[in-house]
Formats: sequence, C-alpha cells, structure tokens
Amino acid sequence: MFTMNASLENIKNGINELDQFNSTKGQGTTRILFTDVELEAREYIKDKMKMNGLTVEEDAIGNIFGVLEGQDPKLPPIWSGSHIDTVKHAGKFDGMAGVIAALEAQRMIKEAGMKHKRTIKSVVFTSEEPTRFGLCCLGSRALAGELQRKDLREICDEDEESLEQVLERLGYDLNAFHLIKKSNHDVYASVELHIEQGAVLEQLGKPIGIVDAIAGPSNITVTIEGVQEHAGSTPMPIRVDALTAASEIVLKVEALAKGSSSEHTVGTVGFMEVYPNASNAIPGKVTFTIDLRDSDMAVKEEVLQELLSSFKEIESKRQVSIHYVVDNHDQPMHCDNHINSMIEKICLRKSIDYNRMISGAYHDSIFVGKFAPISMIFVPSQGGLSHNPNEWTDFEDIKLGTEILAESLLTLANE
Amino acid sequence: MFTMNASLENIKNGINELDQFNSTKGQGTTRILFTDVELEAREYIKDKMKMNGLTVEEDAIGNIFGVLEGQDPKLPPIWSGSHIDTVKHAGKFDGMAGVIAALEAQRMIKEAGMKHKRTIKSVVFTSEEPTRFGLCCLGSRALAGELQRKDLREICDEDEESLEQVLERLGYDLNAFHLIKKSNHDVYASVELHIEQGAVLEQLGKPIGIVDAIAGPSNITVTIEGVQEHAGSTPMPIRVDALTAASEIVLKVEALAKGSSSEHTVGTVGFMEVYPNASNAIPGKVTFTIDLRDSDMAVKEEVLQELLSSFKEIESKRQVSIHYVVDNHDQPMHCDNHINSMIEKICLRKSIDYNRMISGAYHDSIFVGKFAPISMIFVPSQGGLSHNPNEWTDFEDIKLGTEILAESLLTLANE
Repeated sequence: MFTMNASLENIKNGINELDQFNSTKGQGTTRILFTDVELEAREYIKDKMKMNGLTVEEDAIGNIFGVLEGQDPKLPPIWSGSHIDTVKHAGKFDGMAGVIAALEAQRMIKEAGMKHKRTIKSVVFTSEEPTRFGLCCLGSRALAGELQRKDLREICDEDEESLEQVLERLGYDLNAFHLIKKSNHDVYASVELHIEQGAVLEQLGKPIGIVDAIAGPSNITVTIEGVQEHAGSTPMPIRVDALTAASEIVLKVEALAKGSSSEHTVGTVGFMEVYPNASNAIPGKVTFTIDLRDSDMAVKEEVLQELLSSFKEIESKRQVSIHYVVDNHDQPMHCDNHINSMIEKICLRKSIDYNRMISGAYHDSIFVGKFAPISMIFVPSQGGLSHNPNEWTDFEDIKLGTEILAESLLTLANE
Repeated sequence: MFTMNASLENIKNGINELDQFNSTKGQGTTRILFTDVELEAREYIKDKMKMNGLTVEEDAIGNIFGVLEGQDPKLPPIWSGSHIDTVKHAGKFDGMAGVIAALEAQRMIKEAGMKHKRTIKSVVFTSEEPTRFGLCCLGSRALAGELQRKDLREICDEDEESLEQVLERLGYDLNAFHLIKKSNHDVYASVELHIEQGAVLEQLGKPIGIVDAIAGPSNITVTIEGVQEHAGSTPMPIRVDALTAASEIVLKVEALAKGSSSEHTVGTVGFMEVYPNASNAIPGKVTFTIDLRDSDMAVKEEVLQELLSSFKEIESKRQVSIHYVVDNHDQPMHCDNHINSMIEKICLRKSIDYNRMISGAYHDSIFVGKFAPISMIFVPSQGGLSHNPNEWTDFEDIKLGTEILAESLLTLANE
C-alpha cells in the first residue's frame, strides 16, 4: 500500500493558528461557543477548508463539514472530526488536534491523488464542551436526534440567553433544524483522532491508542438552599449553611467514585458558585455540578442512586433544601470492531506500538456512534494533563496519528 | 430629665433614602466601598449633615464626621456612628441604622436646644465590611493606627487595584494620612447603635441590648493548589483535587467551632472561588476565606491552631499545597462599664426592658475602643437575619434605640 506522509508544519501551524482565537491569552486557551473568538475560529476553519479545495457545508446548529467528494458521491460518506471549543483556561490540543488531523488527512489523500469511492468529510462538531450551556456535545447530540428543535428554548447560558436565541441572533435557520438528524446508514463510518487526556499511553510508552469504548457521562446540576445569615452573630447550632452541606456532597462524590466496583468510575465536582460569596455571610445558596462517568452503565447507575439518596440524608440532617437536575445520563459507547481491527492492521504494518483502551473522557463520537460505526485514535498527553493550560501533545505524535487516520479513512472510503 | 422624642419619619426616610444607593436593586442591598452607589451615598450623608446644621469633616481615608459643636469645643468630643457600606446582597439596616440614629440624635439635641459642653460628632466609618479589600473596618482601623500609610499599597481588591490607587484616584490627600490616627483622650467616649444581627433580643422579647463585649474576628484567606486535569480521563487514585481538599477544610472549620469550649465560637467559610470552574475539569485551585470569632481570645487562638495543623494533615494526605494568610486576628473588645451603667439607668428610668449581651458580629467600635471608652446599643433583628436581603428591624425599635442613644450622648457630652 502507498504510504502518505503528513506534514508536521501543517499540523503545527494549524494548531497554533487556531490557538490565536483565545479569550484568555497567557492563561491557557478559552474559546467558548459563539463568543467572538469562537466565531473567528469557525471562519478560520472554513477558509482553510476552502483553501484545501473542499466544499463547506454547515447545518442549523453550526456543525461544519469540509467535503472531499468521492467517485461515487451517492454512497454514505466517511466522517472524521472533532471540536474547536474549549473549557475555560484549557489547552490548545483537546478537540483542535482532531480537527486539524482530519483536514490534513484529507489534504494528504487529495494531494497524493488517491482514489476513493466514498466522500470523506471533515467535521467540526458544535460545542463538545458544556462550558456555555451546561450540556456537552450540542452538535453531535443534534446529529443523533437527541437534541431537538423544541429543546433549544430550554437550554440557557449563565446570562439566561437560550440556545434558540443565540442561534437565531447568529442567523442560523432553525426551520431547517429537523434536517440535522442523521439516520443509520447515512454515514458509513467515522473515525475521530483525539489527545488521550490521560497518562496511560505515556506510562506504557506507546504513541497510539485504539479506543474500544467511551465512558458515558452523567451530569447533574445541584442547588442547595440554606439561610444566609451573619457569620458573626449566628451561633453554630442554629445555622443552615449551604456550603457545609455542599462540601459533604463533594466528599461523597469522591468517596462513591473511589469505592465503586469498577476501576473506571470517576466523579468530579468541577464547578461551584457560592451566594452571596462574602467572607462574613453564611452561604445561603450554593450551585455546583457533578460529573460521573463509567464504561459500565450499571455501575454508574448504582453510584448515581447512592449519591441521590445521600442528598436526602443531608437535607434532613442540615435542614437545607437540595434541588437537582440530571442534565444528561449517557450510555457508554462501544467502538466498531471492524474499524478497530483495520486500524490495528495499519499499526502492525507500520510497526507502530499501540494500546487498545477505554476513553474516560467523552467525545462527540459517543453521539456519532448512535447512527454510524465509529472508532477513535488516541495520541499521548504529556503527564496526562488536559483541561489545563499545560496540556501538551508532541506534534510528532499528532503527525503519526494523522498518518494512521488518513490510511484508515482511505481504506474505509474504498469499502 | 427632659425627654426628647426621635422622629419615626426621619429614621424611616433616612434609611429608605440611603437604600436607593444600591447596585443590586430587587436582590437586596449592595453598596461596596467607593463604587458609584457608595460614593453617591456619601454625598447624600454629607448633604444631610449640612442640612441639619452640622459642619462636615472628612479624613484621608474617607471617614466622615458631622460636627455639632459643644460649648467648650476644646474638650474631647463624643462620637456616635457606624458604616454605610454593605456585603453583597445584604439588607438596609446593618450600619445604616447606626448612622441615621446618630444624625437623628444630634438633630434632637440641637432642636431641643439642649446645652452640652462637649462637641458631639456623628461618624461614618469607611468600609466596615471587608467586601472590597478583604479586610474589615478600614476607616476605624486607621483611626486606631492599625492601618498605616505603608499598608495601603499592599491591600488590593479583586481587580488588583490597591487601596492606595483608589484613594488617590478619588482625590484623597494621602500626605495627610498620618493625621487620621487618634490617641487616647482625643475622644471622650463613643456609642454606636447597631442592629443585633442575631436573634437573642427577639427570643427574649427585649427591645434594647447593651453590649458588654464584641467578639474579635480572625480572617484567614486560604488558597489550595491541586492539579487541574480532565474530569473524565483522570482515575480517582491519581487526582490532586483542590476542591475536595477545600471541602474537608470547610467541614473542619464547622466541626472545630461547634466543638470548642466556648459557646460563643463561630467559624464560617463564606467566600469560595474555584478555578477553572468548569464541570469537566478537576479543580486545580480553590481560594476561600475563613472567619473565626470568639469573645474569648484564648479559645479562638486554640481553634485557629487546631485548624492550621489540620492544613498540614490535608496537605500530606492529598498532595495539595495549602497557602494561607491571616488577614487579621483581632482581640475581642470590652465595652466601658461606666457608659453601660449610664445607659442601663436611662433604660430603667424609661421602663425599657434591656439585655446586657455579647456581640458576635464585629463593629467599628472594636477599633474605636482602642483609643476611647466605647459602648454599643443593639436593636432587635427579625429572625436574627442579617447580611441577607430579608434583614429587618422595626423602625419603632430604631426610634426607641435612638432616643436612648440621644440621652446617652447628651449625658456624656456634659461630663
């Protein structure tokens, strides 16, 4: 088989140029859905697609597709892509590496003049991170039909602006929203390259991960109401402190995740807001999020139930009110064996050491997997750091991953 | 003795008019030091002082004095006052009741034509609340000589603006800063009226509290550094989560205050900020405040030491780094027996039921007490609520307190 080389320069420049669209320069990368920097990054990607000779498509929720047409455009296409939005103060690789890799893979296939029956589409999924609307994977969720037109009004950001309002303001045609959803066989296969965001590959000294399953996230938003009183003149026994109650839950989440029967269970309180947040006022209200994940749905369900029943104990012990919303409670997704065997063969042929593994982090592929066979290629994260300004993956590793991705896409596009 | 009546209308209007200067209308009262609304409130008070025939003085940190001259202006004056700044989303009485009561007491004395040897000054102390600069009682602390010119550069708000920069921007003459400090005998006596901010008077059904001691606050700012990582792909055993560590401390503060040997010990974590504060990032940094108070310094010292040694245990158990600064560690202040007996006699003569008590909340009087004999008159807080939009004291109770205050000031001004 013909060997295509990825360009290290293209990958490096692509990632670094994207990173210029950043609202917290010097303090990591922050690119939140539909903020100025995110809109600029979208234009940058569309321009790049056009320069690479791709046709650009965009759906009613802002998923962007760069179309490299195959010999038989009527066949279901191959997809490869990821996201360009970030959490606050994140790194420049999470998501962006997969988008730039997909564009580079298309360029390699096109420039090498490789024939392919199926169309190959690079994809930028809208808002994989839940940073703005508290719900992850907005674009891929809509593609799977799990985010619908009627939901847009209910999903609001911190400023109480709904996703519907934002999309309308930006000129998206919400009458075309029903056209976003894909059905089985609309897409032949999808392969996403992503940084690992953990330290498994680094510890094993292997440059490539082939993902067998993606842990399903459950996200819960909790609000505790206590009584806001003066910190000096309210004796301890009569306080109804929302933050001490929240602190018990933070530690409960940790204990339940640590003590579960699965080694893959993780539980995190990552966001917390205290009201009125003054050193001399007993907190009257605390809002926080809980993120629970597992590759085993039954274990995750069990942990969630134990957690919810602890809320009742804390309510009765502390006299607080605990309100919660389960924002999502997603199933883990298993990757396609056929695709994974094919990627494995490419690695063996190239004598590249790889690891078949679980993804603790979720990805847009978890939703794409609901209507198409999927897989993911992981490249190592230094120190396992991610969602962190010090997130780092060597460009050489992304180059290697991109070459495996390109061969995988080409193989699939000729099936 | 001549009986003076306070005007319910004056008190009600004064408090309600002051409350118009509020940056969070509809969500309680927020009036933070040197914000637009606080500057407007200062002008309102100065105008009111002038309308009442007082001479207005202001020192280099913005303490405002309304001077009602006595027959012998060379004698050390009597002071009465409180503050007009608030915590976030607070009520309209904490501080403001004492300022309006002092102005009304001066008006009563002046209009009734009562002679007094000593000058009577109403005082608005700058920033009793630590809302902006993390340090309470800026104005009264400077009067006591415990906030000095050289400190102004070190004290910064959340936007990293120093108190020095703010004062200079507003035109305060920092070359006159050394003139702020008062010495013993500069002030003959000071009596502050304040809402109780607790529920003791309400529970006893007594309208007036005479304060024997003010608990001393200790304020500690704590920063915990962990490792910011991805919430999905970082297994539980290798996490270094700053928020779980902070949660242990929140519960430790509560447990130590509850378990101390003094019933007056209170401990509160009221302010907390999580970084990067994203639902899918393990918190890499958490900053929070601890507020510890007691009327017994030895007990407070013991609780503080136990707390600090728990930091070491948590550091070694969780691999986090814990940095802390003790912003202040104030002694409790005992009120003057002579003044309190005099106030007691006024109550007895008027057949008003009173309670001699401790103030769990600190007040500017804690610093004024360092250079002058002090006392405080408490009026009841409904439900004990304070630092809360629902803070409430009946205007009739403030009227009664103001009448006792006026007689006290007049008595002291003729000693």
